Amino acid sequence: MNKINANTLERACMNAEIITIGTELLLGQIVDTNAAWLAQRLAALGVNLYYKTTVGDNRERIANAIRLAMQRADVVLTTGGLGPTVDDMTREAIADATGRLLVRDPELVAHITALFRRWGREPSANNLRQADVPEGAQVLPNPIGTAPGLLVEHDGRYVIAMPGVPREMKRMMDEQVAPFLRRLVGEDVVIKIRVLHTVGVGESLIDEQIADLEEGANPTVGLAAHSGQVDVRITARAPNEKQADVMIAQVERVIRKRLGDAIYGADDETLEGVVAQALARFGRGVVIESNTRGEIAARLRAVAPEVVQAAEVVQPEAVSCAEAERWAQDAREAHGAAWALVVLGTAGANEGLYGEQRGETVVALALGEQVHCKALGLGGADEHSLSWVRNRALDVVRRTLLMASP
Amino acid sequence: MNKINANTLERACMNAEIITIGTELLLGQIVDTNAAWLAQRLAALGVNLYYKTTVGDNRERIANAIRLAMQRADVVLTTGGLGPTVDDMTREAIADATGRLLVRDPELVAHITALFRRWGREPSANNLRQADVPEGAQVLPNPIGTAPGLLVEHDGRYVIAMPGVPREMKRMMDEQVAPFLRRLVGEDVVIKIRVLHTVGVGESLIDEQIADLEEGANPTVGLAAHSGQVDVRITARAPNEKQADVMIAQVERVIRKRLGDAIYGADDETLEGVVAQALARFGRGVVIESNTRGEIAARLRAVAPEVVQAAEVVQPEAVSCAEAERWAQDAREAHGAAWALVVLGTAGANEGLYGEQRGETVVALALGEQVHCKALGLGGADEHSLSWVRNRALDVVRRTLLMASP
Repeated sequence: MNKINANTLERACMNAEIITIGTELLLGQIVDTNAAWLAQRLAALGVNLYYKTTVGDNRERIANAIRLAMQRADVVLTTGGLGPTVDDMTREAIADATGRLLVRDPELVAHITALFRRWGREPSANNLRQADVPEGAQVLPNPIGTAPGLLVEHDGRYVIAMPGVPREMKRMMDEQVAPFLRRLVGEDVVIKIRVLHTVGVGESLIDEQIADLEEGANPTVGLAAHSGQVDVRITARAPNEKQADVMIAQVERVIRKRLGDAIYGADDETLEGVVAQALARFGRGVVIESNTRGEIAARLRAVAPEVVQAAEVVQPEAVSCAEAERWAQDAREAHGAAWALVVLGTAGANEGLYGEQRGETVVALALGEQVHCKALGLGGADEHSLSWVRNRALDVVRRTLLMASP
Repeated sequence: MNKINANTLERACMNAEIITIGTELLLGQIVDTNAAWLAQRLAALGVNLYYKTTVGDNRERIANAIRLAMQRADVVLTTGGLGPTVDDMTREAIADATGRLLVRDPELVAHITALFRRWGREPSANNLRQADVPEGAQVLPNPIGTAPGLLVEHDGRYVIAMPGVPREMKRMMDEQVAPFLRRLVGEDVVIKIRVLHTVGVGESLIDEQIADLEEGANPTVGLAAHSGQVDVRITARAPNEKQADVMIAQVERVIRKRLGDAIYGADDETLEGVVAQALARFGRGVVIESNTRGEIAARLRAVAPEVVQAAEVVQPEAVSCAEAERWAQDAREAHGAAWALVVLGTAGANEGLYGEQRGETVVALALGEQVHCKALGLGGADEHSLSWVRNRALDVVRRTLLMASP
């Protein structure tokens, strides 16, 4: 099936670059989802990606980008610019960048002509441009489109051109390009990623705890912060998945020891998922909230619809633990529920993370006869501050439940 | 308010480059929406964007990307890498790329310290890294985050660093960077974009009709194809919006003359919106469909909920105009409706755009006593072929209604 032939160069460490081509990308009319998808595939193949570039439909600039990428990388993957129209310039640019002529491929002419005849038409002169290939290029068949892909070997590097239509690109990558790259890297490298999710501890504090690990080369450790949550990403390169898992597990053990309860989950786990699961062990319950506008209940219901038996948004007269604890106990009893969560907060326009005042939110959880409460020292009405408040309120529930047993 | 000072160089034609920084972008863990947003803003400012690049959290590679961009562009905009953690390297990389030292800015130290004290904490050593700036850089205040932006003038070029958090970046761009760029370009350039939507005509046929226009420099004309629809994008650069509108109108007039009825709308108009509006002039009606799985009715209802009074998905015994016309007349009468649309098609697994057979779909529209029908010569069960079928079926309705009067 697979038509790509290659000298099997075993490169212990192969670098790729992605070039996405299309003026609509530079005008911001579409978001470059192809690049993110390809980046994931390259990581899974164990191919390093250090740069990706976007250029418009301009022959000279596409050629420049390809020339530069060939200086830095073993493999250059392009998407887009292979269509039949005059602004589709990738074929010409690859020919320019590799010092080749464009020649018309008779097999491709026959293929395109047959396709059009089945549609009851003859291909136009422009359609036949899709049969032009840089001299010596291998053609990558496109079973679900008219734009064939191209593979050019040049000075020991490879330029691989794929269509810009996501479904055509993805299929060509999975069926033809990925197997080629796998042979090129010697089928013996994988990159695995594990993400640990923390909440309630600042990015810079986490950074201080694990700064030494962030300077490691393999696995690498990196941080990303989102509204009171910080993700710790561990990326390992190894000859196979098992070894990558062992390397990740070693680093993960160190990180877990240092960050302890701040870590609430990993990979696809979410804060609301973890909290909903912990609450469900006690039974169904009630959520009452004010400044968080019903979104704590909504997040819990989105992952576990049965766990919240009733939810209410209220306007409290006072924001205090005494008030919240009383509401929580009353609500739990009134609904005959296993638990009741009450989140009451101030929502002043000048309050919040970057407001003049901090504001205040209290989180009370009634669990059976017991009731726990914590003040967060943060309120506000802007979406960013509220996103923090919601995450930290869920974290209060999580940490309270860590101590309790059903 | 605005702290950026600049020599007002009036550049008739200013080029910018965007560098988005973050290993998570190269691992494909997040899609680069910042780049698309910034690209739109630059277009609106009349600033050309020829390249955008993504690099990971690596000091040397960020510095390389900045150096290269400074060779090609007047202004280099970066996002990301300004946080407090050891993998936030943009400050260092800008210093490297412009041959400067990093110095700690006392005003920023005071600002960060005050912020942390309001949060009841002292800044850590890492937090204070956010007060380091390349010598001579201007600081761009960040009112909603701890990461300040930076502006460095170097050899007549500008490097402007903004945070990677989208809300912080967008506010800094709109409040500080965009006004600076506007002064730099002399406030006398805008780029305006108009998109004409066509349906029912192939991309290469449209390309042949307007190839000469696609080679123009200003306005530029480009094409983008989506499942039987082709968008024609006209982009004009002019000293002001009014002149840009005039330039666009001139080219639009030529395109409309050549493409005629194939153009169904412009900019935010959608095919279902145009069709729903045309149907509504006759009254409410009924949609019956088979292979298109209820999605034609759903698309019409999404834009005009009142126009479809009843909808049904059926399994026809035969796919023919005779059958579809009969169903359409019966359904219109049975519901006492103004019109009835019936779309019946084959849905074989080996049928479709790139299947062994083409398959068949017929589209019948009963309008009062009259009934019209057209066979599309395309069926299938894969989503791509169905997407074409739905667009072309709506186009049959559109073209039929162009001839009819209510």
